[in-house]
Amino acid sequence: MTVNDQRHAPLVGSGIYVVAPSGAIADPDALVRARSYLRQLGFGATIDRQVRAVHQRFAGTDAQRLDGLKRALQQPKGLVMAARGGYGLSRLLPAIDWAAVADSGKVFIGNSDFTAFNLALLAKTGCVSYTGPSFAGDFGVKKPHPLTADLFAETMRGELELLSFESPQADAFDGRGVLWGGNLAMLVSLLGTPFFPRVRGGILFIEDVNEHPYRVERMLLQLAQAGVLARQKALLLGSFTGAVPTKLDRGFDLSVVMAHIRKTVGIPVIPGLPYGHTPIKATLPIGARVGLATEAGMAHLVIHEH
Amino acid sequence: MTVNDQRHAPLVGSGIYVVAPSGAIADPDALVRARSYLRQLGFGATIDRQVRAVHQRFAGTDAQRLDGLKRALQQPKGLVMAARGGYGLSRLLPAIDWAAVADSGKVFIGNSDFTAFNLALLAKTGCVSYTGPSFAGDFGVKKPHPLTADLFAETMRGELELLSFESPQADAFDGRGVLWGGNLAMLVSLLGTPFFPRVRGGILFIEDVNEHPYRVERMLLQLAQAGVLARQKALLLGSFTGAVPTKLDRGFDLSVVMAHIRKTVGIPVIPGLPYGHTPIKATLPIGARVGLATEAGMAHLVIHEH
Repeated sequence: MTVNDQRHAPLVGSGIYVVAPSGAIADPDALVRARSYLRQLGFGATIDRQVRAVHQRFAGTDAQRLDGLKRALQQPKGLVMAARGGYGLSRLLPAIDWAAVADSGKVFIGNSDFTAFNLALLAKTGCVSYTGPSFAGDFGVKKPHPLTADLFAETMRGELELLSFESPQADAFDGRGVLWGGNLAMLVSLLGTPFFPRVRGGILFIEDVNEHPYRVERMLLQLAQAGVLARQKALLLGSFTGAVPTKLDRGFDLSVVMAHIRKTVGIPVIPGLPYGHTPIKATLPIGARVGLATEAGMAHLVIHEH
Repeated sequence: MTVNDQRHAPLVGSGIYVVAPSGAIADPDALVRARSYLRQLGFGATIDRQVRAVHQRFAGTDAQRLDGLKRALQQPKGLVMAARGGYGLSRLLPAIDWAAVADSGKVFIGNSDFTAFNLALLAKTGCVSYTGPSFAGDFGVKKPHPLTADLFAETMRGELELLSFESPQADAFDGRGVLWGGNLAMLVSLLGTPFFPRVRGGILFIEDVNEHPYRVERMLLQLAQAGVLARQKALLLGSFTGAVPTKLDRGFDLSVVMAHIRKTVGIPVIPGLPYGHTPIKATLPIGARVGLATEAGMAHLVIHEH
């Protein structure tokens, strides 16, 4: 694959178009709150009519959700944002016209289930897209986290050059590569399919929620045994939340998992990325070339170089 | 790959050697009960010393579990049985000498996590192995199910030729192919790795436990999008148990999943296989050529033709 490394122009003023390719919106008030919050942040939002559709656990039938994505490519707003995660993109991947998505020139952003969209777009076209807040999931809550909002707004305005975070356990690293990843379960759910990007020398970042450490390890071992981890320069860890340890784990936890992966693969591991199923999440490009360096208990992700 | 279609000679009298490549045995009394039950069934059992080891959630360290498997290849008993499932084989796959496993002439049996062993052995050598009861998990319970015991004993004695079961929802099918599969999550955890068998024209069977229907669908879509399902002649469904539906599913359940898979892939689906995380489970060869036919609400699996 070739990687499209172009920089997007600042998007202020062009606004947001909201689609929901995954789960149904349980609380329509969240859409009202999100539009109001984002307007104050300087982003006007138009909500596609599909977003309020409900079919089983999905935001409408497969056809309705695909139509929402198609309309998003035709309308004038520059930023297309997922309303929330959930489950649903796995069904749509083979039916999406990825060349049309890339040619639309839109900037796409979402998280969790939307990882399938980010990675399939990268695999099929090399086009950069974003992971970060979702419309209802992050801006439709009663009190959106101001840091999530700031990082989103700065990144969308092309102003964020450096994302620094505490990482006292980080392996030493200083290098550049294509940033890619997202939700680990979604990433792994693409392995073996045409929607899995073949990134070499990349900087892979992962997060997950409600996955027991043994499942996180099993997924990482699958990536390792498929040869994916050995092709990456570094592994960035976001948050792993929601999993419930049991007495029968007897100390088997995420630190054991990461020690095993470090030993098995020999890849530098850098924890602490502010990203995951957490109120604070950075907005990150998927498919863009970035720099990464660790120093004195900190990690620095150079997102936008001049 | 080539498939080793040889029939194993009856194993009565040669007995069982027990290993534990996955989870730790929480209740050592289960080993005592299992040995006693199997002795009555006509199978003497020797328990490797590794089986009682405990390291975190595993039955010993990776090295201890590998050593147990190595000793199983050297000892005289003909049948090597896993003590239980859990998690652990994913770590061991790259370190197992698969040619030595195949050359040992032993018959291997287990379930759940052991699916990784069955499928890696098939992928690496074409050697047939078995899925069915585990030593502690099925024969170490207070009251082992007599049907599970009978099917195990008959299959191991080479006596079971036909396994028939009710399948009123089955698609019409009459054909032959290589039987393969097991636990769906374990099967999918091998996709993209060298341990995933490339079976063409096969009869794939799956089961799972504690996996929400959306996760079952996501795994099946991964198999579909990786081209695996289209290469199979039929999909046999065992039990899917333990998942808790939520109000937000709004009717999205396993029947919806299977209808979607039938429509998407066009593969005949045959439910009702007595196999899964349930007291009743058949003993099935993985990698052997079998016949399968549906008729009048029944499905007939021809396991052993003369």
